[in-house]
Amino acid sequence: MALATFARSGLRRGRGRGGDAAIGSFARETNALCEGASTHKFPLPSVENFTNMSYIASIRKVDHMNLWSRGIRTTPQNLSAQAAEIIAVDSDSEYESPRYPSLEATKPGEKPRVVVLGTGWAACRFLKGLDTKIYDVVCISPRNHMVFTPLLASTCVGTLEFRSVAEPVSRIQTALAKDPNSYFYLASCIGVDPDKHEVYCEAVGHAGLSHEPYRFKVAYDKLVVAAGSEPLTFGIKGVKEHAFFLREVNHAQEIRKKLLLNLMLSENPGVSEEEKERLLHCVVIGGGPTGVEFSGELSDFIMRDVKERYVHVKNYIRVTLIEANEILSSFDVGLRQYAMKHLTKYGVRLVRGVVKEVHSKKLVLNDGSEVPYGLLVWSTGVGPSDFVKSLNLPKSPGGRVGIDEWLRVPSVEDVFAIGDCAGFLEQTGRPVLPALAQVAERQGKYLVELFDKIGKQKGGSAFSAKDISWGDPFVYKHLGSMATVGRYKALVDLRQSKDAKGVSLAGFISWLIWRSAYLTRVVSWRNRFYVAVNWATTLVFGRDNSRI
Amino acid sequence: MALATFARSGLRRGRGRGGDAAIGSFARETNALCEGASTHKFPLPSVENFTNMSYIASIRKVDHMNLWSRGIRTTPQNLSAQAAEIIAVDSDSEYESPRYPSLEATKPGEKPRVVVLGTGWAACRFLKGLDTKIYDVVCISPRNHMVFTPLLASTCVGTLEFRSVAEPVSRIQTALAKDPNSYFYLASCIGVDPDKHEVYCEAVGHAGLSHEPYRFKVAYDKLVVAAGSEPLTFGIKGVKEHAFFLREVNHAQEIRKKLLLNLMLSENPGVSEEEKERLLHCVVIGGGPTGVEFSGELSDFIMRDVKERYVHVKNYIRVTLIEANEILSSFDVGLRQYAMKHLTKYGVRLVRGVVKEVHSKKLVLNDGSEVPYGLLVWSTGVGPSDFVKSLNLPKSPGGRVGIDEWLRVPSVEDVFAIGDCAGFLEQTGRPVLPALAQVAERQGKYLVELFDKIGKQKGGSAFSAKDISWGDPFVYKHLGSMATVGRYKALVDLRQSKDAKGVSLAGFISWLIWRSAYLTRVVSWRNRFYVAVNWATTLVFGRDNSRI
Repeated sequence: MALATFARSGLRRGRGRGGDAAIGSFARETNALCEGASTHKFPLPSVENFTNMSYIASIRKVDHMNLWSRGIRTTPQNLSAQAAEIIAVDSDSEYESPRYPSLEATKPGEKPRVVVLGTGWAACRFLKGLDTKIYDVVCISPRNHMVFTPLLASTCVGTLEFRSVAEPVSRIQTALAKDPNSYFYLASCIGVDPDKHEVYCEAVGHAGLSHEPYRFKVAYDKLVVAAGSEPLTFGIKGVKEHAFFLREVNHAQEIRKKLLLNLMLSENPGVSEEEKERLLHCVVIGGGPTGVEFSGELSDFIMRDVKERYVHVKNYIRVTLIEANEILSSFDVGLRQYAMKHLTKYGVRLVRGVVKEVHSKKLVLNDGSEVPYGLLVWSTGVGPSDFVKSLNLPKSPGGRVGIDEWLRVPSVEDVFAIGDCAGFLEQTGRPVLPALAQVAERQGKYLVELFDKIGKQKGGSAFSAKDISWGDPFVYKHLGSMATVGRYKALVDLRQSKDAKGVSLAGFISWLIWRSAYLTRVVSWRNRFYVAVNWATTLVFGRDNSRI
Repeated sequence: MALATFARSGLRRGRGRGGDAAIGSFARETNALCEGASTHKFPLPSVENFTNMSYIASIRKVDHMNLWSRGIRTTPQNLSAQAAEIIAVDSDSEYESPRYPSLEATKPGEKPRVVVLGTGWAACRFLKGLDTKIYDVVCISPRNHMVFTPLLASTCVGTLEFRSVAEPVSRIQTALAKDPNSYFYLASCIGVDPDKHEVYCEAVGHAGLSHEPYRFKVAYDKLVVAAGSEPLTFGIKGVKEHAFFLREVNHAQEIRKKLLLNLMLSENPGVSEEEKERLLHCVVIGGGPTGVEFSGELSDFIMRDVKERYVHVKNYIRVTLIEANEILSSFDVGLRQYAMKHLTKYGVRLVRGVVKEVHSKKLVLNDGSEVPYGLLVWSTGVGPSDFVKSLNLPKSPGGRVGIDEWLRVPSVEDVFAIGDCAGFLEQTGRPVLPALAQVAERQGKYLVELFDKIGKQKGGSAFSAKDISWGDPFVYKHLGSMATVGRYKALVDLRQSKDAKGVSLAGFISWLIWRSAYLTRVVSWRNRFYVAVNWATTLVFGRDNSRI
């Protein structure tokens, strides 16, 4: 039932841009506290909990509007006693404005500052193109690199190395590292105040800074929200606890470690046949491109590496792909059939089913059948993150940040949203675009051209773009989809939409197209070189199975 | 005071073979329980704690000797209730022998089984050469790869990639993956019973096996203990909590993450000058080759990558190397002076001092001075692991497993020890060899030739090598030492001992020798290729700074 939803929406959901999953995960923790935030239900601070609430209270003092109603998210109860005290002292001594560490607003005559939230496809395409002669730029994200998501599945089994698919953001936009007024902050954004033109952030990691969590604010002239999405779990019990997602490099690292661990543990003396079968049962939930490509990579790994290098247990390893509806539902029917035939031929069991609940060693389907597993990868598409949900900005159908045809967030000034976290508002009459890398990238490219235009018209500073000519709105043209199914075979679907006609290919030639297309898309020459070298060494030497 | 010790012993201590640090770390946890083990002080199980102690008790039932007195280490109090129960049931139902999962002893007519503990230099050299037509082999280690330790320091800053210095053990000895009766077990050895010819093991990781920790026993015909050593901390308070060691790939990964984290956090708005200086103060304790090479790599990284890519904070980063005595004390005096001059020139501050205690943000020297730090790497040599200490076998001066000239452990049959964990017994009249890769490798090579010899004389099975001619004893000839000091400079000291005369070189040519020597020593062609590729891309593109 729950899974039935995702298959319908089709078109490469689950293929992660993955921009800011950690923002999501931060947000998740604090969700319970803030659930009522955007609907004004958060209780006013009482006298009793003043110390803990002093930051909020101090904001209230200076601000006639309740910040909560404008999407500010903080986690007062989570503040350590020490941090709360510091803030309390600050707000006592400086009644007018709490002395939160901050990057102050730019002054007249200075370059306007663009703040970008995220380091996914949309954010990085925008950053790459930004004219740093016109703008200073601050990028805020809990990870300092972009992930080349279409190749992430290949890293789980070692076809590619992790670093070959990660691109440091300071290489994509060198101003972040070099320009005196441009910065990259390794932090999660926890709130936006569009009126004050400020974002609130919490630094990642623990390094013993003066107070932790280390919070600060950054003033912007223009804000680009490209904070990505979160994996959908449909509220199914046990998914977050027991399944692996596949959207970040560390997810791929964990999957690889788990797979190698299970292969080795199943060789231990005394492990029963049944237990070996469970340990080596790899279950993939979701038949979108990520799920299919991961299954294909796994079957490749089994055919070539496990058969040769884990001889004692090679007959126990199996891959099952569970999908509620049809695999690769956005692809041409001929390609779908090809994919199913190919996967089945190389040992991937395709099961139509809906997951009811997940336990540590087995999952239960809606029909009551139980599926024991050793590794569970969950890839059923993405939805708005808790951070996006918490923002008190207009929303698109489906709960993303609502944008107009120029990717602006209406009702507030100088805020733009792109990528997975953004969707056209209902009143634009346009459909919400699929959560695809190519959508995100195109939006980043469009927006940076728009910024160039408004910058040249002196509209770059805060509150100064009212009388600007915005030019042509954003138009998305789908270029088609690709997916590999393993064993040197791939699908290429060049139709512009699900129901359109057009060229579609499957087989070895498609696989060559798939590889060359992605190789040219890899951002830097360094990684392009490493991807090629990884592919070559995998071919010659097989995959590395050091568990590091 | 405490640190004064390590500098004296010289000769590349701290250069980790690092074979089985995790064995050590397991052992450390259980140390409190077993401290009295080798001296017979462990209390007999009383009636009250019978359930928990049933495993021990059941061994006692079948065995006239107290196993503790022969070096068995188990951790009864650590057993989960469930595991304890299983063992209790087992020992009830099978009075004679607890039904511990096991790899049973070989039968007459079968190939004799060699059990190797460890995957460091000694173990891997032995494994590589073992004639699997004569022997079956079982390797037991908490890591499934060998680490090419001389190049580990380079991976901390990204000059080399982690996988380029890790070699899967199943590639070094393919029989482990392929032969029907040879195995690799990802486990820590927790005890040895030389009389029964069995080792006791605990599987690494949690995969939901029938009972966890998952323990099993393996019978051997011949046992090779190559379980490595542990970093020395001299009981200094706070070292284990706050400092990083540098002996395993995951240590290097953590150091790299921490360094990049500190670089990024120090850019946060509002971080004080003092705090930036602390965060970016990298302190290395111990001036052996590991400490010096790591300092050199850091200074390289700062000169080239930080200056270009962390412009906002580049003036705050510093490296301090603290040593109680002289750096590189085993090297020729000319080379030492060269190294000191070179390091100082490139910004490494050399401090003579002894660490008294370590706190989370600062360390205190014996003279009372305080040194704030952001990253602390501890590399003051190695000593016997708790596992080695717990074994009730003869010991060498310094507490290693005592061996004779043929690397045999006398007083028990069919047990051999090589590498860091082994030392010549006092009665052999030979000195304990330094904890060096070349010692370990040479011992592995010698021992495998010995095994070939006794195998061919039908002495491979348990208790069958009494009348074998053992041939020439092991003789160690030191080939010299090398160390890089960063910025394309290295030291090469070809003297056979500290006080001998011989060739010694320093500078660029030495650096070329250093690089080519290690490149040819890298185990596999795959990694040789990757090391070369990493070096080339570091030269062309600089180091990768994705924090993954």
